[in-house]
Amino acid sequence: MSCPVPDVDLGRQLFDRLRDIGFDGRGMTRPSYGREENLAHALFMDTACGYGLEIRRDWASNLFLTLPGRDRNLPAVMTGSHVDTVPCGGNFDGAAGAVAGLLVLCSWVEAGFRPERDTTLIVIRAEESVWFPLSYLGSRTAFGLLDPSALDMPRSDDGVSLRQHMLECGAEPGLCGRAPVLDSAKIDCFVELHIEQGPVLPEAGVPIGIVTGICGSTRYRSIVIHGQYAHSGATPRRFRSDAVMAGASMMVALHDAWKKVEAAGEEMTLTFGVCQTDPGQANFAAVSGRLELVIDIRSRDEVLLERMNALVIEQARRVEADYHVQVDLGERTCSTPAVMDETLQVEARILAAAMGLPVISMPSGAGHDAATFAGQGVPTEMLFVRNANGSHNPDESMEMDDFMHGVRLLERLLRKRAGQLLPRTSAYGWG
Amino acid sequence: MSCPVPDVDLGRQLFDRLRDIGFDGRGMTRPSYGREENLAHALFMDTACGYGLEIRRDWASNLFLTLPGRDRNLPAVMTGSHVDTVPCGGNFDGAAGAVAGLLVLCSWVEAGFRPERDTTLIVIRAEESVWFPLSYLGSRTAFGLLDPSALDMPRSDDGVSLRQHMLECGAEPGLCGRAPVLDSAKIDCFVELHIEQGPVLPEAGVPIGIVTGICGSTRYRSIVIHGQYAHSGATPRRFRSDAVMAGASMMVALHDAWKKVEAAGEEMTLTFGVCQTDPGQANFAAVSGRLELVIDIRSRDEVLLERMNALVIEQARRVEADYHVQVDLGERTCSTPAVMDETLQVEARILAAAMGLPVISMPSGAGHDAATFAGQGVPTEMLFVRNANGSHNPDESMEMDDFMHGVRLLERLLRKRAGQLLPRTSAYGWG
Repeated sequence: MSCPVPDVDLGRQLFDRLRDIGFDGRGMTRPSYGREENLAHALFMDTACGYGLEIRRDWASNLFLTLPGRDRNLPAVMTGSHVDTVPCGGNFDGAAGAVAGLLVLCSWVEAGFRPERDTTLIVIRAEESVWFPLSYLGSRTAFGLLDPSALDMPRSDDGVSLRQHMLECGAEPGLCGRAPVLDSAKIDCFVELHIEQGPVLPEAGVPIGIVTGICGSTRYRSIVIHGQYAHSGATPRRFRSDAVMAGASMMVALHDAWKKVEAAGEEMTLTFGVCQTDPGQANFAAVSGRLELVIDIRSRDEVLLERMNALVIEQARRVEADYHVQVDLGERTCSTPAVMDETLQVEARILAAAMGLPVISMPSGAGHDAATFAGQGVPTEMLFVRNANGSHNPDESMEMDDFMHGVRLLERLLRKRAGQLLPRTSAYGWG
Repeated sequence: MSCPVPDVDLGRQLFDRLRDIGFDGRGMTRPSYGREENLAHALFMDTACGYGLEIRRDWASNLFLTLPGRDRNLPAVMTGSHVDTVPCGGNFDGAAGAVAGLLVLCSWVEAGFRPERDTTLIVIRAEESVWFPLSYLGSRTAFGLLDPSALDMPRSDDGVSLRQHMLECGAEPGLCGRAPVLDSAKIDCFVELHIEQGPVLPEAGVPIGIVTGICGSTRYRSIVIHGQYAHSGATPRRFRSDAVMAGASMMVALHDAWKKVEAAGEEMTLTFGVCQTDPGQANFAAVSGRLELVIDIRSRDEVLLERMNALVIEQARRVEADYHVQVDLGERTCSTPAVMDETLQVEARILAAAMGLPVISMPSGAGHDAATFAGQGVPTEMLFVRNANGSHNPDESMEMDDFMHGVRLLERLLRKRAGQLLPRTSAYGWG
């Protein structure tokens, strides 16, 4: 057996094909349980087929590509990520992890390496919860964690139900809640490679991050502040029900609270990504009677998330009194913070050191499917790849060199877990 | 000659016809220099024709309906208002004043009353500056005050130039700046009846307001705050360029300044009627890279308007530094405050008292064509009619009884100015 060497050209081809599938004229749009996500899954299936990997789909239409182990009864080693995007997103968020997993398995096939344990790439469905208001939809369903009532949720762009979308993607929504295909007792570990979605690695000048934990979130995706439209010049302040000012005051108060949290050494983020008056009715000469807002709070500290949530509610009540409006917070959705496995982190750092690859340890502010695996007790780890310009936008900018460093580290980590000792010296130097 | 009695049924008919012309399924939409405004002008022309009034149009297609006086060389008495609306507005803002003027002239014709002076109803074009970013477009043009470069302004809804819209309405845009048809030396007075657009008269329980002055304004109609889209969870605060937070912070700071201005006994209003992220790119999981805002500041105090404008600029610079954004304030448009004529105010109060009609004196927070006449040195006055639910919305609610009280007061005031003494006792009691 030769030493497995992940194929950079295959990686480039896969990214190019994914770009062809998802390009919307400006960025990538591969909606959850949509046509472009399907085409991306088909691309992985076709490629895996060419390398003789075992192919399965679960009731949620997640894709499992497996290189069978010598002992198929041993808990399997798993890797994977999603291939859906946000609207007008980039080509690497999610896809990098799926491509990386495929490059690892293909390199093993090419090298004639047969692992002790089954080693599986999961191409996960519907991670981007901008399409359906539920975090980690695909991975949660694989563990049988989908509440059947969620099947009636409409997709945000077309309004068609999750159930209908799943049926059209070849899934069996009726079985999703009842027949989980993943069982944490049968999984040795899950390792997800992902681009970093913030500026920490570029700022630090380091290509790879070893993730320590994944933030949980508290979100209000459909806040509506109801005021009263009124003439801007003819309505004295005391008579106003100003939805815009109520919203602005609430945002500033919560933002001030965030600054205090940070000053106290605690970690969180707070974001109001959408803030809009009604384009059909708002105009420059009228106090606005309606403002829509979203709030996204993230932290690895569950207690802090609850404290901030209480403050959101308190501030909503305050601006109702101060600005004579009604604040409808709408539904709150949450995800739980996840801790990454200590052993896997240590293993990754040791392997990186052996490769001469600079890494730093860092938390993940963004949520990932890995959090689902960790939440189910699976030893879980994430590897971040340096990426300029953030993610969830068309300007994601991951260098192939950085990506391949991440793939090689992933390959060694999975190989270590799947049952073969690594050679003592690095096959690829750093720099 | 019998005593003129304005015809409530004719008033109802005209309002009904205007509603038919402008109903958009929810409210009234009669765009400036648009089809529905044209139809409304045609309605006034037809009705005036039936009563034998003299009919003229100026280069801007303002409509002049005149009952000729005995001495046509004397400065004329004028009344009037506009019949365009904001998008999805109400039926009475503007139209009430035009209908009132027509009822007065028709009642004089019916009663066989021939005034000493020409008495003219002007049905004014394009007052609602939501359609074109310029205040008092029609009345300013009648005085030859239109800057020819303004002819290239696009209408906000269809993007077609003012010049093209004027041509399609039978106007002569090329002559507008060069050949004014109104000359303040030839106008005895201008009196505009208008619904109150705020809650002052309903709150006071009084049907008619005698206006003391009209607020001027400072407006920014197209502020854009440029930030940087970034992942909400993965982007620490220090790396953010958050357009929404910059906007919220600016709004709260300016609103605090407003409260201080009021606490110091000064009068103004401050409104942010439009506040929106980009619906095509904003989402709950991203810091927003763009926010559009409008600011509308109004006051009768020109110095205060300038002071507030300086604060807008100061706050824009502050949030640029605090939130790492770029604030493009766009064009500032202004209108000058106007003082109503003291003599006309006293005459109106005396006439109202003689009728037993309760009135209060009040400023106009909203701008009106009357400000153009006042600005040209014409003795000018406005009469406000009680109206619930404000204006610039489909829920304007003026009672016909209140309207007719206003029409009767207008009729007496115009008759007094146009050359005939009033009878000593009131023909109509109050209550």
